[in-house]
Amino acid sequence: MDVKDLRVNGKRLQESLEIMAKIGGTENNGVQRCAATDEDKIARDLLSKWYKECGCELILDEMGNMFAIRKGKNPELGAVMSGSHADTQRPGGRFDGILGVLAALEVMRTINDNHIELERDLIITNWTNEEGGWFAPACMGSGVWVGNLTKEFAYARKDRDGISTFGEELERIGYKGTYPCSYKAWNIDAAYELHIEQGPQLYDEKLQIGVPKGILCLHWYDIYLEGTANQVGPTPMHGRNDALLAFSEMNLVVNNVTHQMGNMVGTVGEIQNYPNSRNIIPSKVHFTVDIRSWDDEHAQKAWEMMKKEFEIIAQRRGCPIRTEETWKVEHAPFDAELFDRVIQTADELGYSSKRMVSGAGHDMSEVNKITRGAMIFVPSIDGRSHVECEDTPYEDCERGTNVLLHCLIKSAS
Amino acid sequence: MDVKDLRVNGKRLQESLEIMAKIGGTENNGVQRCAATDEDKIARDLLSKWYKECGCELILDEMGNMFAIRKGKNPELGAVMSGSHADTQRPGGRFDGILGVLAALEVMRTINDNHIELERDLIITNWTNEEGGWFAPACMGSGVWVGNLTKEFAYARKDRDGISTFGEELERIGYKGTYPCSYKAWNIDAAYELHIEQGPQLYDEKLQIGVPKGILCLHWYDIYLEGTANQVGPTPMHGRNDALLAFSEMNLVVNNVTHQMGNMVGTVGEIQNYPNSRNIIPSKVHFTVDIRSWDDEHAQKAWEMMKKEFEIIAQRRGCPIRTEETWKVEHAPFDAELFDRVIQTADELGYSSKRMVSGAGHDMSEVNKITRGAMIFVPSIDGRSHVECEDTPYEDCERGTNVLLHCLIKSAS
Repeated sequence: MDVKDLRVNGKRLQESLEIMAKIGGTENNGVQRCAATDEDKIARDLLSKWYKECGCELILDEMGNMFAIRKGKNPELGAVMSGSHADTQRPGGRFDGILGVLAALEVMRTINDNHIELERDLIITNWTNEEGGWFAPACMGSGVWVGNLTKEFAYARKDRDGISTFGEELERIGYKGTYPCSYKAWNIDAAYELHIEQGPQLYDEKLQIGVPKGILCLHWYDIYLEGTANQVGPTPMHGRNDALLAFSEMNLVVNNVTHQMGNMVGTVGEIQNYPNSRNIIPSKVHFTVDIRSWDDEHAQKAWEMMKKEFEIIAQRRGCPIRTEETWKVEHAPFDAELFDRVIQTADELGYSSKRMVSGAGHDMSEVNKITRGAMIFVPSIDGRSHVECEDTPYEDCERGTNVLLHCLIKSAS
Repeated sequence: MDVKDLRVNGKRLQESLEIMAKIGGTENNGVQRCAATDEDKIARDLLSKWYKECGCELILDEMGNMFAIRKGKNPELGAVMSGSHADTQRPGGRFDGILGVLAALEVMRTINDNHIELERDLIITNWTNEEGGWFAPACMGSGVWVGNLTKEFAYARKDRDGISTFGEELERIGYKGTYPCSYKAWNIDAAYELHIEQGPQLYDEKLQIGVPKGILCLHWYDIYLEGTANQVGPTPMHGRNDALLAFSEMNLVVNNVTHQMGNMVGTVGEIQNYPNSRNIIPSKVHFTVDIRSWDDEHAQKAWEMMKKEFEIIAQRRGCPIRTEETWKVEHAPFDAELFDRVIQTADELGYSSKRMVSGAGHDMSEVNKITRGAMIFVPSIDGRSHVECEDTPYEDCERGTNVLLHCLIKSAS
């Protein structure tokens, strides 16, 4: 058979996804399988079994990142890597992360079934704690691997209840390995990650494959307002310093500036209001702003406009304001050659595709820092993700996996 | 001495206030003395001692309401009652409530010092748990007394930590009495309550005595919005259903309608936002609206306007809305004759005064339901109350107490 005619086994992929979805499966058809929990251990045990059945060498590093290696003819050439994460939000869905892990496994199985010899090593990865659903922050395994975080920092992270540390729990489930958690211990030539889109574009436009040219920048701000607490009854409207009213105007500013400037998303997702009592004028508000764009300067300019308007509102409402730049990640373009390869591969397979950007961060945001990276997206029904009803048709999973198959073969040949 | 020349002992009043402020006194010069706590017991023990030193008969009812009775010449005539509450917010200030209790005590002491015989019984009250700071709801003692709440309901209320009940704690501190908690067990002709204004009007206008014609109506609403949770990064701005943005517009509507209609206050004090995560579009918001006016119909009309605008916003933002009318208390006019008496008395004493309304609820909101009632306000510095920095100059306390003295003498003669 001509290698061009090779296709993955969609039924086997679906079965693997279905078996895996039972580990941490929730009543509402979702999955709760946070990193370093009992469910994570069961999922890892199953992955290990499947990897071994593929004849892979397994390596477990200090952060619990799992690497399943299929040797190529010339191991001295840099390896081609593909994978994602088995952990979920709390609760999350059946596809986010695990699809990329099991798609890479299905590619490995297909290549084995067809006795294809590759020049380069092929490595499937399961990155630890991409979601940060139980231990913050997110992208912990891949973050330590590229040197963005230290493993000591990661080990010391407490769970959301503040009881145990990530390091203790990773050890408890038996997945704290000894291999150095660093890209420097590897020789990687290229990396791919298949993932659900997590947005509505492919689904709305009835397209099959999304090809992100990279990941949007991420600018996070924290804003603190001070008002004056008073009993609402005896305090006339004039002269009030209502921090929640000031916030409300500011939230509309975030929305307006984002719409007016375009080519970006801007969101207030979190607010704390004090004393948060129905008969006391709000005296303190903390809220967040999340700005993402392909253009860091554009995002920065938007923030400056917002901040200017915030200050005018704060002054008019008598609510002193303090703003903090909390986190800033520059936009991350993927490798141009790999990006073209994904588009071309989708074309060759007869799948419709869309050039796009990734608004969400991924393990590939990290991995792309130290090697050539690319991603393949498949549609999310109604754009939903990080919720139990997250869904992607199995035919779309299969199409994405076929694209991954041929990209990996091309890169590893 | 002509009774008209009688004045209370301002120094003694100040001393009593200062001694009492130590019971539950906080580091920041405030007081935390919630009903049915150890601090409340110590305050009650001290009040009992002071009442007895005045030669009063003490009655403790089933709700712990304290009544100190100074017999008149004709006890068969209805009694004249005055008092407020010794409990505070958590924490609160040195004047809210306790000033009205100690002012009535000072009046009793002054009348005794001057051997004045009155026709009617004079009763000082300390109503239990006006603030509801540790056991909700507020005005519990006076509420049961007028038949607005049942004592069984009150006894079963849990503290904010959900550990013990109000009934258990009242018994524990030794202040669960046996006398029936009902106005029907009493014969009351008139009632006065001296209180700090809790608003800025007297202080801003440099006036000495506030004379409320009654208490504003109180209309409480709860509003629930549904949005669609999605990852902020991959979800374009168009087509979002952001419940917090819808809320922000609605908060401005509450403010605008309130300003445009005038003669009312309208406030959003409380908001819950879900999932309240900086990178997820808000999918659920609950918030409250508090509307107060002298005119119930006016307040009702304002709510209807707000609701209409809320529904338009909800539809435009794709955020289904549900509204609930949570609590509705009609405006409560005080007795016209007593109201005039307070104004006239302030004039006679040479104090500047202002006809006003009470925006806050008081024990008098309840007591006024079953007898003729009136209130006397003294200035709150900067209008602050329910905070540790709550303050009223002692000269203002003394002036208010002189007004109370002469109103009580006139009513009881």
